[in-house]
Amino acid sequence: MSKGPRTAISPTREENYPEWYQQVIRAADLAENSPVRGCMVIKPWGYQLWENVQRALDDMFKATGHQNAYFPLFIPMSFLEKEAEHVEGFAKECAVVTHHRLEPDPDGGLRPAGKLEEPLIVRPTSETIIGATYAKWVQSYRDLPILINQWANVVRWEMRTRMFLRTAEFLWQEGHTVHATAEEAIEETEKMVEVYRDFAENWMAMPVIVGSKTPLERFPGAVETLSIEAMMQDRKALQAGTSHFLGQNFSKAQEIKFQSESGDIEYAWTTSWGVSTRLLGALIMTHSDDDGLVLPPRLAPMHVVIQPIYKDDSRAEVMEYVQSLRDELAAQTYANAPIRVTIDDRDIRGGEKKWYHVKRGVPIRLEVGPKDIAAGTVFCGIRNQPKSVGIERAELVATISDKLATLQQELFDAALKLREDNTVELKSEAEFRDFFADKGDTAITGGFAWCHYCDEDSLQPLLKELKVTIRCVPQTNNEAEGTCFLTGKPASQRAVFAKAY
Amino acid sequence: MSKGPRTAISPTREENYPEWYQQVIRAADLAENSPVRGCMVIKPWGYQLWENVQRALDDMFKATGHQNAYFPLFIPMSFLEKEAEHVEGFAKECAVVTHHRLEPDPDGGLRPAGKLEEPLIVRPTSETIIGATYAKWVQSYRDLPILINQWANVVRWEMRTRMFLRTAEFLWQEGHTVHATAEEAIEETEKMVEVYRDFAENWMAMPVIVGSKTPLERFPGAVETLSIEAMMQDRKALQAGTSHFLGQNFSKAQEIKFQSESGDIEYAWTTSWGVSTRLLGALIMTHSDDDGLVLPPRLAPMHVVIQPIYKDDSRAEVMEYVQSLRDELAAQTYANAPIRVTIDDRDIRGGEKKWYHVKRGVPIRLEVGPKDIAAGTVFCGIRNQPKSVGIERAELVATISDKLATLQQELFDAALKLREDNTVELKSEAEFRDFFADKGDTAITGGFAWCHYCDEDSLQPLLKELKVTIRCVPQTNNEAEGTCFLTGKPASQRAVFAKAY
Repeated sequence: MSKGPRTAISPTREENYPEWYQQVIRAADLAENSPVRGCMVIKPWGYQLWENVQRALDDMFKATGHQNAYFPLFIPMSFLEKEAEHVEGFAKECAVVTHHRLEPDPDGGLRPAGKLEEPLIVRPTSETIIGATYAKWVQSYRDLPILINQWANVVRWEMRTRMFLRTAEFLWQEGHTVHATAEEAIEETEKMVEVYRDFAENWMAMPVIVGSKTPLERFPGAVETLSIEAMMQDRKALQAGTSHFLGQNFSKAQEIKFQSESGDIEYAWTTSWGVSTRLLGALIMTHSDDDGLVLPPRLAPMHVVIQPIYKDDSRAEVMEYVQSLRDELAAQTYANAPIRVTIDDRDIRGGEKKWYHVKRGVPIRLEVGPKDIAAGTVFCGIRNQPKSVGIERAELVATISDKLATLQQELFDAALKLREDNTVELKSEAEFRDFFADKGDTAITGGFAWCHYCDEDSLQPLLKELKVTIRCVPQTNNEAEGTCFLTGKPASQRAVFAKAY
Repeated sequence: MSKGPRTAISPTREENYPEWYQQVIRAADLAENSPVRGCMVIKPWGYQLWENVQRALDDMFKATGHQNAYFPLFIPMSFLEKEAEHVEGFAKECAVVTHHRLEPDPDGGLRPAGKLEEPLIVRPTSETIIGATYAKWVQSYRDLPILINQWANVVRWEMRTRMFLRTAEFLWQEGHTVHATAEEAIEETEKMVEVYRDFAENWMAMPVIVGSKTPLERFPGAVETLSIEAMMQDRKALQAGTSHFLGQNFSKAQEIKFQSESGDIEYAWTTSWGVSTRLLGALIMTHSDDDGLVLPPRLAPMHVVIQPIYKDDSRAEVMEYVQSLRDELAAQTYANAPIRVTIDDRDIRGGEKKWYHVKRGVPIRLEVGPKDIAAGTVFCGIRNQPKSVGIERAELVATISDKLATLQQELFDAALKLREDNTVELKSEAEFRDFFADKGDTAITGGFAWCHYCDEDSLQPLLKELKVTIRCVPQTNNEAEGTCFLTGKPASQRAVFAKAY
């Protein structure tokens, strides 16, 4: 008899983290590459996760006064030309529609026909098309603020793609707001990055650092970009959400003007903020282990799966028992919602069924057979615990909500510990080079380095050489004064440096 | 003092129905044309309606065993070529992506660059791209059925567009299922058209006829298309949803094959079904009146709006009263959901505020001032009633749910009566010509005509001349035998004929 792998996922994280990531996605049946270059298919289990992300965020957006709307998929090419930095940032990777029908090709097959007068860009982000619309809506200070969000697909023609993390088409939400004053727009920018922090930490169980992007790392056209940055298990950073204060850059490019209370005509102040299906990549890489996906309970499509174990003569008894157990569990609540319980009664081997749910990250897995029924117990496996244990049925029902809450907290704590264990302060170029030394594509090294620095531009050769980026200037716990790690000169800014996705 | 129009919407339905439709959308702030030809902006009030449509339908899809997933926006041109009827149906109106970046044009501005080896089509519908994916998923009868739905945007390059009814880009859902047998696939097709009927009648309060499309009216590539057909207030038909039995046409084009229980390799049987933002056009045209939008309560984003009426010295008293009234109303339920109540305390004239909500179709409008408080009453306007009336507060709270249910039912009844009053049986060409005679673009004439006919093809010259189409062969109350209205010969089929959107 051949020996199987030691873990459900092969390779392990240690062996080859990038390949482990692909295999977790495959084993959990979250998504797959499509026949269209760079585009993925999000499969039902992955899409349910995204639906849960959407619902939680959407509620938070509405609670902070936003409404949803929908704007066109296409942007006329001339719109993109209006904001210089913006076009620079997006023109190099966009899908361009040039024709509006197909006709038979004399050589066989079809060919594009009906050339458009002006090419259309498939939106890579919607500042320009939404701004053009807002310019019509905004006349007076009474029309402000405009607080709108859009759930949509966007396309950026990435050459190297990776599922969820970087795909040509992805799903996201983009908030676009307009304000009468800079102060209000800045407050909005900060409010929304705080919504993202709250969501990342309390729903995804993913600790994040909130900070400002440095000028070279900002969104094209933004005055200020705030972001949340998380550490993945390979110690790389992942930017999980951004909130941009756009100043008057877009309102000037698009003529979003209003008459103020005092009667003057002024340009408005705008913001934009977004998160995408990239969050699912972050979720996978934050919690999953060498047996597959691990889901934080608040976002899990299924909290509990029950596996009935029976032979022909015990089937009726066991099924009746697990159905009543399911009903009792489903009557409990976790995080203000009913507990989501499913019975998996498929006719497949018990071991195969167990690993099916382990690999898909179901938080709690229960097994019930005739012996458990006789003993009044249930065999209970919690996704982050190495062993299943027997537990009295009444106790299980009474503690199921606590068990989910504990798991949610433990996942957060473990991720925070990983980040803290791999965060350093670096004071010199030698330390910096040592910490970020390249030890091969699949090696897990590095982490977050907090460093004072004088000048972003002068760091670029070193950062490029080591493939390191400035993630952000953190908003909290950040001493202003120190010594530049590169020049040794006094420096009044400190940032977090890391290799990043 | 100049006299205002007799109605909030001008022109009225009688005066110019198509223009009335545009004005209702504008007055209710549902949507507007965008700067991109043929694409619309769905504004917050319109989008909230769509969200309510989505939530209700999504629950119904899940209750019938379906899951959501997401497939690529783009379809390689060669995929479209595989199913002959399908390409014929969609190649004439599609957005074609030919380049993947922009570069500076020597003459100024930008120009498309990075030509793609194979052009990509922005999906007009996803049978081909989803089918190509299913071909990989389906190996054995154990993999079947596949029951998946997708919420997405699609693009069809329509030359003449009208908001919600016909736009280049629109939002929809498309279900795509795969089955081992023809019987199962037909059952699915029928189940989903029944879901659409249920939704149209019980949520939208819009009576529909369920029937089969005739061969010339079928979806390109389908063996059978079922649809729901509604009558608008101008007596034209609107196809509000379709469910297609695709036979093995797409599975053969795309090689969706499986090993059956007996070990044979067989082609699978597929279905697809969809509804779109067109439903909002149907909703508007079914219920709205010359004062604007009328919303069926089950889909209304807001059930009740309260307008407090006060002067400076009575403000505190009135606001306290309406807040407690709001809380009491919001604690009631209608159709298994809490009643959605808002206080409109904006500082604008009472008349302006009233018409704002009337035009947006809010089902129940309450006014409360110091005199009402003293009398223990509330002034209550129901959207389909000509006059507001005073009602005791306790009675209002006790009956609010019934009032909404009554309005929902009355809207359905009125729409059904309109359809019945304008449905005829026609036995001869003369009757047919008379019923469908063209009386000008804005005249309201015609309706639904039930007619026996021998042969669809031979009817075409007459139908084209009169701009009439066969809507469907109804599933119920349809006598099989009769006499062809055109030839007078015996005919074994009867259909509903109408002018249509």
